[in-house]
Amino acid sequence: MAKNIVPRSENFPQWYQDVIVAGQLADHAPVKGCMVVRPDGYAIWEAMQQSLDSMFKETGHVNAYFPMLIPESFITKEAEHVEGFAPELAVVTQAGGKELEERLVVRPTSETVIGHMYAKWIQSYRDLPILINQWCSVMRWEKRTRLFLRTSEFLWQEGHTAHETADEAQEETLLMLEVYRKFLEDVCAIPVITGEKPEHEKFPGAITTYTLEAMMQDKKALQSGTSHNLGQNFAKACEIQYLNRENEMDYAWTTSWGVSTRAIGGLIMTHGDDDGIIIPPRLAPIQVVIVPIFKNDEQKKAVFDHVDRIADTLREKFGRFKIKVDDRENMRPGDKFFTWIQKGVPLRIEVGPKDVEKEAGMIVRRDNREKQSCHISEMIEKVDSLLESMQTDLYEKAKTFQKENTHSVDTYDEFKKVLSDKGGFILAHWDGTNETAEKIQEETKASIRVIPSNGSEEEGKCVVTGKPSKRRVAFALAY
Amino acid sequence: MAKNIVPRSENFPQWYQDVIVAGQLADHAPVKGCMVVRPDGYAIWEAMQQSLDSMFKETGHVNAYFPMLIPESFITKEAEHVEGFAPELAVVTQAGGKELEERLVVRPTSETVIGHMYAKWIQSYRDLPILINQWCSVMRWEKRTRLFLRTSEFLWQEGHTAHETADEAQEETLLMLEVYRKFLEDVCAIPVITGEKPEHEKFPGAITTYTLEAMMQDKKALQSGTSHNLGQNFAKACEIQYLNRENEMDYAWTTSWGVSTRAIGGLIMTHGDDDGIIIPPRLAPIQVVIVPIFKNDEQKKAVFDHVDRIADTLREKFGRFKIKVDDRENMRPGDKFFTWIQKGVPLRIEVGPKDVEKEAGMIVRRDNREKQSCHISEMIEKVDSLLESMQTDLYEKAKTFQKENTHSVDTYDEFKKVLSDKGGFILAHWDGTNETAEKIQEETKASIRVIPSNGSEEEGKCVVTGKPSKRRVAFALAY
Repeated sequence: MAKNIVPRSENFPQWYQDVIVAGQLADHAPVKGCMVVRPDGYAIWEAMQQSLDSMFKETGHVNAYFPMLIPESFITKEAEHVEGFAPELAVVTQAGGKELEERLVVRPTSETVIGHMYAKWIQSYRDLPILINQWCSVMRWEKRTRLFLRTSEFLWQEGHTAHETADEAQEETLLMLEVYRKFLEDVCAIPVITGEKPEHEKFPGAITTYTLEAMMQDKKALQSGTSHNLGQNFAKACEIQYLNRENEMDYAWTTSWGVSTRAIGGLIMTHGDDDGIIIPPRLAPIQVVIVPIFKNDEQKKAVFDHVDRIADTLREKFGRFKIKVDDRENMRPGDKFFTWIQKGVPLRIEVGPKDVEKEAGMIVRRDNREKQSCHISEMIEKVDSLLESMQTDLYEKAKTFQKENTHSVDTYDEFKKVLSDKGGFILAHWDGTNETAEKIQEETKASIRVIPSNGSEEEGKCVVTGKPSKRRVAFALAY
Repeated sequence: MAKNIVPRSENFPQWYQDVIVAGQLADHAPVKGCMVVRPDGYAIWEAMQQSLDSMFKETGHVNAYFPMLIPESFITKEAEHVEGFAPELAVVTQAGGKELEERLVVRPTSETVIGHMYAKWIQSYRDLPILINQWCSVMRWEKRTRLFLRTSEFLWQEGHTAHETADEAQEETLLMLEVYRKFLEDVCAIPVITGEKPEHEKFPGAITTYTLEAMMQDKKALQSGTSHNLGQNFAKACEIQYLNRENEMDYAWTTSWGVSTRAIGGLIMTHGDDDGIIIPPRLAPIQVVIVPIFKNDEQKKAVFDHVDRIADTLREKFGRFKIKVDDRENMRPGDKFFTWIQKGVPLRIEVGPKDVEKEAGMIVRRDNREKQSCHISEMIEKVDSLLESMQTDLYEKAKTFQKENTHSVDTYDEFKKVLSDKGGFILAHWDGTNETAEKIQEETKASIRVIPSNGSEEEGKCVVTGKPSKRRVAFALAY
């Protein structure tokens, strides 16, 4: 067990912080509440970007860049929007040595400024749809912050689309929800429950917000991505009008959707163990690290020759940067193992003099620590299959954990008992009012995370008010 | 000739603006001096990023992310640095609904905040070198702005490295200069003159600034990238100290280097013609556009079948997104040609009923408009060789232009006459003083762009003062 990491069972929040420090994933910036994403953390973000970006492009989206500073008046154009974001704004009041005539906010999200440009670019239905994504950072001033999970500045992508019809906008909203589900489940191995947010939890200015909720190992929920159908709200606020096929002026229908560096926090808390982060193979910047073991210079030469042979073999299949040789001088193999375990690299191959003799290497899985010797002639196949199994196993393990910690309850007493005894996701009937949701949250701290899209239809009665309900919703304590 | 673009000969600055509008590359943001990079412009930036990023990684660098907001006190730590950047800062004074205790500046560049983190991360020589790059936007409040060339916010990458010795830092500075040269010349087809900046033109806080200067078609110089040896200046300002191999505390030696979206402006002004931008094949987000031509539904089906066959063939070799089929309805082929010319796509393939019969396509080069029919069986080879020739031809043409417009002069009268009659780069002897450089700039508007690294050694006398000089330096009017 790692001495620099507190066990999960002892103190989960501290474990989380320790894992980030041990893996050199992020650090606190000099400005309170801001974050530095260190190279090993950023490499995970780059892998996430690559994966998401190619899915965005496959679905017809293009990237662009909109300015970081937004006139303060823009934010106030949409009533719910300003109410939601005003308390969190960072404001530029001086620039170029002068007081500004209009205060500028550092973007907390870009609906208003992108809407302003869309209004300029869109003249007729021929200009629609517009399907644009942007990779950037946003600023939401936070009082209580936690690296990756909640910081004043964070990295994300925000997609913004405009359409001719309500149906198209709804289709886009659900398409991106599905893209996110695939990304989280198939690439990050994080099982999620997808569905709508209740009215009082939706994005300020949206008609409907869809969410992807994941269960962390402390059984709390993490919102891991959202996709919003904005209806014509922002089109009206930003004057995105166009000449429709009937030759009449109409407002466009817009959507927005985002995933942020928060997903790295989700990754840590879904798969990590008491020795640190575990990165699923499909996302891992380095998939295999090879550690040479030797006692003298003669052994060193033979070992390194063999290590290079293994590395060259694997690089041809997996790519140059996916295979790392740890050739650091003056460091014991055990210490090397330790650093790579804490960085979550999926497979380690240990190569000593005996492995040279056998033309083999000892492969060790990061997740279950299983070891097996493998001959170089079978190395590609073995590594490939181990990476595949590990990817599947991580997902299955998390899925099982999620299932085991999801409970259906039928009374409010049972709700409270299960929540305090077991925790996790609680599926319960709810009467659909903010009032009841607020009462439950005040009394139990659990909030409605998601109204699940699938499998939750069932006639029932609200656990609090007894009023009729058509489906169970998922409650949980949340990040 | 495009009606929406003024000819270069008539009004070069207007031509530049028109090309950007016609190609939908960028737009003015609602905040004065800021820029929206539209999808077609951003795709060029993405291609530049991809190319540079892989060169950075090949040379051992990793990416990270540092916060956008920097405490104002940080900027003042290095005396020259604050003097250089203070007038251009944008300042956040309020956040989260409150006046901030310390004002925060939106990063104009990140030496100080990265230095602060390096001071924390670097303990001993074992932690060196640190080779980090960051992709982000920076803010420098500008009064007179021009899209891509000078805007208050722009996108760039900034590399920041720390080393054990002065020699290593110098080696890194020159290594990155060479990476930039390769990128600009081999990928962007922009010939550059590399070398040092004179003392008074260097980065605020640097020991030496190296630059890459390109000649635009109006014969003005564009600084297209810089690489700075910062000596121990920032290490001292930011307290980046480490235990050296002699077990003594020492300051690290640091460098920084950057290329920005300005390079897109350079691309436009190096290769563009009176019909718009021309994108060099190695950088082109779309390398080939295929335009179907037909008069009726029967032709349409046959033409599209053939177009798909050509597209599939080419995609296998060049990649899915490099080949675009323009299947827009209700648009005449001529209008389609026009839009792709203005977007600078290297090759266009026209496919009509006669091409279907011949199992061929008519390939048209964007730069010289040469047309040639090509049978589908030879299409891959032909497209490949045309892309290669176009890449070379664009570079050679620009190189010839640069050479033809670079003049050596030996007297100040000749200097002024050549500058006003011919323009371009003027190679002249200079006594090495700021005073003389300032006098020349005041009287002629030409500044010293670069002290060329190669081939400029020659004994001579300053054209103004007659004092001895060991090499010619390059003067020019500049962006």
